[in-house]
Amino acid sequence: MNDNDALALPPIEPTANAALAARLQHKIDHKTKPLGALGALEGLALQLGLVQRTESPALHAPQMVVFAADHGIAAEGVSAFPQAVTVQMVANMLAGGAAINVFARQHGFALQVVDAGVAAELPAHPRLQARKIAWGSANICQGPAMTRGQAHAALAAGMDVVKSLPGNVLALGEMGIANTSPAALLLARLAGASVEDTTGRGTGLDDAQLRRKQDALKRALARHPTSQPFDAVAELAALGGFEIAMMAGAMLQAASERRVVLVDGFIAGASALLAQRLAPAVRDYLVFCHRSAETGHGLLLAHLEARPLLELGLRLGEGTGALLAWPLVQSAAAFLNEMASFESAGVSTQEAA
Amino acid sequence: MNDNDALALPPIEPTANAALAARLQHKIDHKTKPLGALGALEGLALQLGLVQRTESPALHAPQMVVFAADHGIAAEGVSAFPQAVTVQMVANMLAGGAAINVFARQHGFALQVVDAGVAAELPAHPRLQARKIAWGSANICQGPAMTRGQAHAALAAGMDVVKSLPGNVLALGEMGIANTSPAALLLARLAGASVEDTTGRGTGLDDAQLRRKQDALKRALARHPTSQPFDAVAELAALGGFEIAMMAGAMLQAASERRVVLVDGFIAGASALLAQRLAPAVRDYLVFCHRSAETGHGLLLAHLEARPLLELGLRLGEGTGALLAWPLVQSAAAFLNEMASFESAGVSTQEAA
Repeated sequence: MNDNDALALPPIEPTANAALAARLQHKIDHKTKPLGALGALEGLALQLGLVQRTESPALHAPQMVVFAADHGIAAEGVSAFPQAVTVQMVANMLAGGAAINVFARQHGFALQVVDAGVAAELPAHPRLQARKIAWGSANICQGPAMTRGQAHAALAAGMDVVKSLPGNVLALGEMGIANTSPAALLLARLAGASVEDTTGRGTGLDDAQLRRKQDALKRALARHPTSQPFDAVAELAALGGFEIAMMAGAMLQAASERRVVLVDGFIAGASALLAQRLAPAVRDYLVFCHRSAETGHGLLLAHLEARPLLELGLRLGEGTGALLAWPLVQSAAAFLNEMASFESAGVSTQEAA
Repeated sequence: MNDNDALALPPIEPTANAALAARLQHKIDHKTKPLGALGALEGLALQLGLVQRTESPALHAPQMVVFAADHGIAAEGVSAFPQAVTVQMVANMLAGGAAINVFARQHGFALQVVDAGVAAELPAHPRLQARKIAWGSANICQGPAMTRGQAHAALAAGMDVVKSLPGNVLALGEMGIANTSPAALLLARLAGASVEDTTGRGTGLDDAQLRRKQDALKRALARHPTSQPFDAVAELAALGGFEIAMMAGAMLQAASERRVVLVDGFIAGASALLAQRLAPAVRDYLVFCHRSAETGHGLLLAHLEARPLLELGLRLGEGTGALLAWPLVQSAAAFLNEMASFESAGVSTQEAA
C-alpha cells in the first residue's frame, strides 16, 4: 500500500430501529423490578438487543486482542518506564503472566497479541500475530509518526485481524510505552482541546515529569499543523500510534460484522474517537468499560457521549478494564433473557399501588 | 427469648496484621504493572489476604442469602409499591425468576431466602428458611417496630442462619416493601443526621410522595426519642426492620468465622452500620459493592469509610449489587495469585527508568 491508496472502510449499519427498541424497552420495563431499577444494565441490554437485532441477545466466544507498539516520542522522556518494557510485557502476555491473561482466563476470553509496531524482533508464538508496520512510530517531535501509507496499512491490518475471529464479542486492549502521548495528542486534535486538558501522568509521572511530557507534546503539536481540510487519517499519520490505528481498524471491522466491542480506557478511547471520525455509526457497537483518572479521559468520554460501566482507578491498559466490565455485559443479557415479567410471576406493579 | 436476655455476640477478631499486610503489599507492588495500576482491586486483594490470613486468598462456595420482611410503616404510604409485593417477590425468588436469581445462577452462588418477618404465611420450600419473628414490624408512627426481645431474636436468627452455610463468602440482600424507611431512620439515629439527609425516593417516589414519606419518618423519629445512654439495639427495636436486624446478625457471625461479606446497597448498608455499632471489628470483613443514588447512601458510606466497587444506578436491592460486584472480588484474588512478578517475568521496573 502506498501513500496514494484510498482507504476502504467496511460498511457499518447504524443500529437504530425504533420498532425493535420499543419492544426491547417494553420487555425491560415489564421485568419484576421497579422501572429503571437495574440502572446502567438496562441501557446496556437495549444496546445489545439493537446490535444483535433481537429481543434475546446471546454472547458467545468472546475474543481479547491486545495491540502492541512502540513510540518514537518515548525518547523525549514522556513515560515512567523505559521503552524496553513494551517487548518485555508482550513476552509476559505470551507467557500468560500479565494482568490481562489472568482476567482473560477468569472470564473465558481467547487472547491474542498483535505486534502492530514493536521496536524489536519478536519470536513467533501461537498467540502472536505479526503485523508490524515499523519498528515503532517515529519521534513526533521531529517528524510525522508514520506515512499516510503506513496509517492506511495499520487501519487495514486492524480490520484484517478481526475478520478471522470467531464469536460476537471483541475486547480491545493495548501495550506500548509512551502511548498516552499520541492518545492525548489525537484527542487534542480531534476534540479541539489543549495539551494541558488532554495530557496526564500515564503510568505514574511526578509533577516535573508531567511538565516535561506536556512540553514535548506541545512541541509535537506545533510541529504538525492541523490538516486543511481536516482529515482524521492525516492527524493519525502525524501524531501516530500503530496500535491506536489498528484498534480503530478493528473497531470498524467488528462493527461492520455487528459484534459487541468492549472499549477499555484512555488509549482505546482515542482509537474509538478516531474510528468514530472515520465512520460515525461505529459508536453504536461500542461498550465503554472503564473511566480512568487519566487527565483527558473525561473529555474524551464526553465527546463520545459515553458513560463507562466501571470506575476503579485502573491505569494499566492491556484491556484490563474491558475484561473487568465483561460480567456486567453478560448480566445485562441475562436479566433480559431470564428474569420473570410482572405478568408471568404474578407480582403487583408500581402503577397498582 | 424475652426482653431481659442479654445479647450474645460472637467474638470477632480485627484483621489488622502489620507483618502480613507488608508481605501482601510487597507481593502486590511486585506484580508486572505500574504501582497502584490495578486501582481498587489492589486494596481489595489486601483485604482478602488479611481476612483469610494468607498471601494467597482462595474464595469458594459463595452463598447468597436474601432476608425478607414487611414493615408496618408501609401503611403510611411511604413506598411506590403495595405491601403485597414483598410476599409476591419472595415467591418469584423461590421460583427463580427475580433479578437476584439470574445473577446468582450467572456467578454460581447458592441462594436462600429467609422469611425474617413477612406479613403472610409462606408455604414451605427447599430454598426458604422460616425465621419469621412476626407478621411484619409494627407501624413505627404509632409505637416501637418490635420489642427488645424480638430485636435480639432477629439478630440471633441472622447469626444462626450463617452457622450452617458452607464456603467462605457471604453475600447479603433483602426484600421488604417500605424498607428504605427504617434504613433511613436507623441511619439518621446512628449517624446523627436529619430525615431530609437520609430519606430518598426508594423504588421510585415522586416529589409529593417523597414529602409524604419524609413527614411520616419525622413523626416516627419524634415518637421515639434517642435512647439514653445510647443503645444501638434500642434504636433497632424502636425503628426496626426484621430483615435489617437479621442481616446485621449474619454479618457479625460471618465476620466471626472470617468469611468475606459482600454488602449490597442502602438497606444492607444500614445493617452494616448497626453491626459496626455492635462490634466495630466487623467492618474489616465487609466488601461494599454498590453506591446507589438513594439519598443518604453517600452519608452512610462516609460513616463506614466505604468506597463501593460499583456505581451503576441500581435501586433494586435483593443483593443485586453484591452479586454484580462479585467478579471483581474474584479478579482481586486472581491477580494476587496468578500474575507474574517483575522478577519472574524479566520486566524492567519503573525505578529503572
